[in-house]
Amino acid sequence: MNKRYEELYSLSLRRGFIWPSAEIYGGLAGFYDYGPLGSMLKRNWENSWLNYFLGLGDNYFLIDSSNIMPHSSLKASGHVELFSDFLVKCKKCGESYKADDLLGEVTGTSGEGLKAEELDKKITEANVKCLKCGNGFNAATEFNMMFPMSIGSEGQDKGYLRPETAQGVYLNFKRGFEVARKKLPFGLAIVGRAYRNEISPRQGVYRMRELIQAELQIFFDPTKFDKTLDFENIANYPLRVQFHDDPQIKELRCEELIAKKELPKYYVYHMAMVQKYYLEQLQYPLERFRLLELGENERAFYNKIHYDIEVNLESLGGFKELGGIHYRTDYDLSRHQEGSKERMEVTFEGEKIIPHVLELSFGIDRNLWSLIDVFYEKTDRAVLRLPAVLAPFTAGVFPLVTKNGLDVKAKKLYVALRDYHNVFYDESGSIGRRYARMDEIGTPFCITVDFDSMKDDTVTIRERDSTLQKRVPIPKLESLLRELIIKKKPFTEL
Amino acid sequence: MNKRYEELYSLSLRRGFIWPSAEIYGGLAGFYDYGPLGSMLKRNWENSWLNYFLGLGDNYFLIDSSNIMPHSSLKASGHVELFSDFLVKCKKCGESYKADDLLGEVTGTSGEGLKAEELDKKITEANVKCLKCGNGFNAATEFNMMFPMSIGSEGQDKGYLRPETAQGVYLNFKRGFEVARKKLPFGLAIVGRAYRNEISPRQGVYRMRELIQAELQIFFDPTKFDKTLDFENIANYPLRVQFHDDPQIKELRCEELIAKKELPKYYVYHMAMVQKYYLEQLQYPLERFRLLELGENERAFYNKIHYDIEVNLESLGGFKELGGIHYRTDYDLSRHQEGSKERMEVTFEGEKIIPHVLELSFGIDRNLWSLIDVFYEKTDRAVLRLPAVLAPFTAGVFPLVTKNGLDVKAKKLYVALRDYHNVFYDESGSIGRRYARMDEIGTPFCITVDFDSMKDDTVTIRERDSTLQKRVPIPKLESLLRELIIKKKPFTEL
Repeated sequence: MNKRYEELYSLSLRRGFIWPSAEIYGGLAGFYDYGPLGSMLKRNWENSWLNYFLGLGDNYFLIDSSNIMPHSSLKASGHVELFSDFLVKCKKCGESYKADDLLGEVTGTSGEGLKAEELDKKITEANVKCLKCGNGFNAATEFNMMFPMSIGSEGQDKGYLRPETAQGVYLNFKRGFEVARKKLPFGLAIVGRAYRNEISPRQGVYRMRELIQAELQIFFDPTKFDKTLDFENIANYPLRVQFHDDPQIKELRCEELIAKKELPKYYVYHMAMVQKYYLEQLQYPLERFRLLELGENERAFYNKIHYDIEVNLESLGGFKELGGIHYRTDYDLSRHQEGSKERMEVTFEGEKIIPHVLELSFGIDRNLWSLIDVFYEKTDRAVLRLPAVLAPFTAGVFPLVTKNGLDVKAKKLYVALRDYHNVFYDESGSIGRRYARMDEIGTPFCITVDFDSMKDDTVTIRERDSTLQKRVPIPKLESLLRELIIKKKPFTEL
Repeated sequence: MNKRYEELYSLSLRRGFIWPSAEIYGGLAGFYDYGPLGSMLKRNWENSWLNYFLGLGDNYFLIDSSNIMPHSSLKASGHVELFSDFLVKCKKCGESYKADDLLGEVTGTSGEGLKAEELDKKITEANVKCLKCGNGFNAATEFNMMFPMSIGSEGQDKGYLRPETAQGVYLNFKRGFEVARKKLPFGLAIVGRAYRNEISPRQGVYRMRELIQAELQIFFDPTKFDKTLDFENIANYPLRVQFHDDPQIKELRCEELIAKKELPKYYVYHMAMVQKYYLEQLQYPLERFRLLELGENERAFYNKIHYDIEVNLESLGGFKELGGIHYRTDYDLSRHQEGSKERMEVTFEGEKIIPHVLELSFGIDRNLWSLIDVFYEKTDRAVLRLPAVLAPFTAGVFPLVTKNGLDVKAKKLYVALRDYHNVFYDESGSIGRRYARMDEIGTPFCITVDFDSMKDDTVTIRERDSTLQKRVPIPKLESLLRELIIKKKPFTEL
């Protein structure tokens, strides 16, 4: 792990964003917990994601499903057979490695998408040895990444922890479609945990065995894949894309991308919406974002078109996948129709069809880590320039001093604001130190009750990024905060 | 299951509250999924719970932890040895039963808290036979309810799915305490899943194998257990309690309960806060609520004082546990100190202590079911009288007709409100039918754009419970809804 990773991880531990799971028992590789700040950041990110992505359609809903799924359903989906990685094991010490990652780590070129024999060949050619003891490897074998479960006192039912939230949606498709009055497009999202028994998770919070996903499955009429009502609005929007056979990131207008790659309009429309989410809603810097095309060998077995959503993360050494835009066709519903013997066909505009699926998939842990990586800077002061809407605390509330009733008034203000905003009360240390503590965890505003407040019922509000201060009346504070945060009103116009 | 259960379950399936998991594969006993309405209700309940219970202290935070925990931690906590139920198995057909529940089902008196020999004796005495084939049972055996897991490609690590979220908090206690600046009382909450391999779940959504909990662990200085700053405010507050050896519910003022049962003030203060949550925040009818004392045999191995939070649910045939108030002493932290060899002592006010724990524990699935049971009524109309703050949709937005621009105006209003409220747009069917659809799922307000709206920019707002209607200006609508919902302003004062 590099210096930037160490810096951010240390911040994370110290202030309470992300911690190793079961740390007092020595931890468990690939498992992390969220501290107070991390869990608030997560909840805010989830709300922002739900608000934006469910807002893309009139007929998009959140659902939630069991993390344990029956064997039959994951057999049907193809995961029992195909959801696997290649494992190589040291002949001498027995250490296990994910073969493609090991190859990438040692040679600089990942072995993603290669078959067992190809991996063995490359490992031999590049003379890759065990990182622990320096010995050679047995031939690569396939390893299924799902966690199997036994259910019932006699293990009557076999199951797995779900490897992706998506499968929970597919199993609920029929009931959901009924509730949503049988209109297409129709969307179901799940925000929740997925579980992958990663062979040897070595990349910190980036490769986790228990991960949190936000996935939206959009069911649509495949005959309309090339039609999008709103396409005109984004036809000229420039997408930052990189093709699988090209080392350069390109800027192409949506129309140009369609002409070049023969992509369906509906797919490209969602590429634009995803990019807008990162660049406009969350204010990621343009140059740190790209949509990366995956070639045929690199795509999962259920995807026909696949662009990864990637952000350049200094702490992880370059562009990293935070999500993906997956055209899964009717693969999943058809497999479940076959496996369950329940018809997945729906009647839409007089035709019987199995809807196709466009999946917008996001790894929440990775996204939260990326926020810290992208927005944390430490120069003369340490500031986490989080989008205000995501910040764990909306505002810090301070009495200038803890006497003459200033603390009582500040505390009262804090309690009054707490019904509407997540605020933090702090009376210890100098105001400068209190500002610094709030800056470091991304709190966008600080409110100080001073001696003037006692006379005229106003307070000072300070903006994190500019450090500018303004004087505002206490009765207006709650609505001003809402304007600043939800409506993104510029602080200077307050 | 009784008629009321059937009625509510049918509503739940039809409108999308709760569905059986993996239904197209025949379902999996003890597993349920949340549909669109259920998942919004859940999210709102969680927010309400967090807001209220984290608000009980200045130093209470939400965290989140991995669902998979290492064997060592659950060995230390006592769960590997003690988290078990008694199982009896039919000699002939092999059907398994949870012994105490079976006894309760057949004889009307639960066998909760009995030992194996006592259960066998009662089963023989009452001549209880297999419900499937009518034959007798083998002797009761202990069955551990945790789901074991193997982690790593060779199963290098053994683990379990967590049986309660509480353990995730205890493992994070040390880091949390550091972050929270080492003050007591200090609280950490987790809202998330827990997993129990129930022997034979037969009670619908009431006994689930994968359940969702909201648990707050309050760490406090045991020398202060009988002191509470705010106690004066609740000394005369009447608690509805039932003692373990008394069939009657009693109303006792907090002071009286303390005198009678020698309960610590801090414990009773939290009983009052919990009761206020149900009766004042969520408006449960008084007579449907009780706090039930558990006797020594009935308490879990880690609890020293234990009152269940119970609500009378017609659909489940009587009072049912929705949560509990558990004085867990220093049992858990001490066990983890022993198991992990990490010191759990903290220095507080100059003394080295292991904090004691008061746990406020809630089963979310049961609470959501109880809302439907308590608030659904079907007389001349079907109305789910949910507290406004919990309702899946805040408001329905309708155009009176879909012509003359009314639908365009209504849609515009819907989109504008969506940034602040979860609203539902509906233009199909008569206004009466649209009201009825919203009443049935608990939407507290409906907004109709009519011909007058086109002239004077006002709309009709209708209240679910009273069916009263008022005329309000569109620009004021967003803030009026907030006042009605968050500040609980009476509709008649609008």
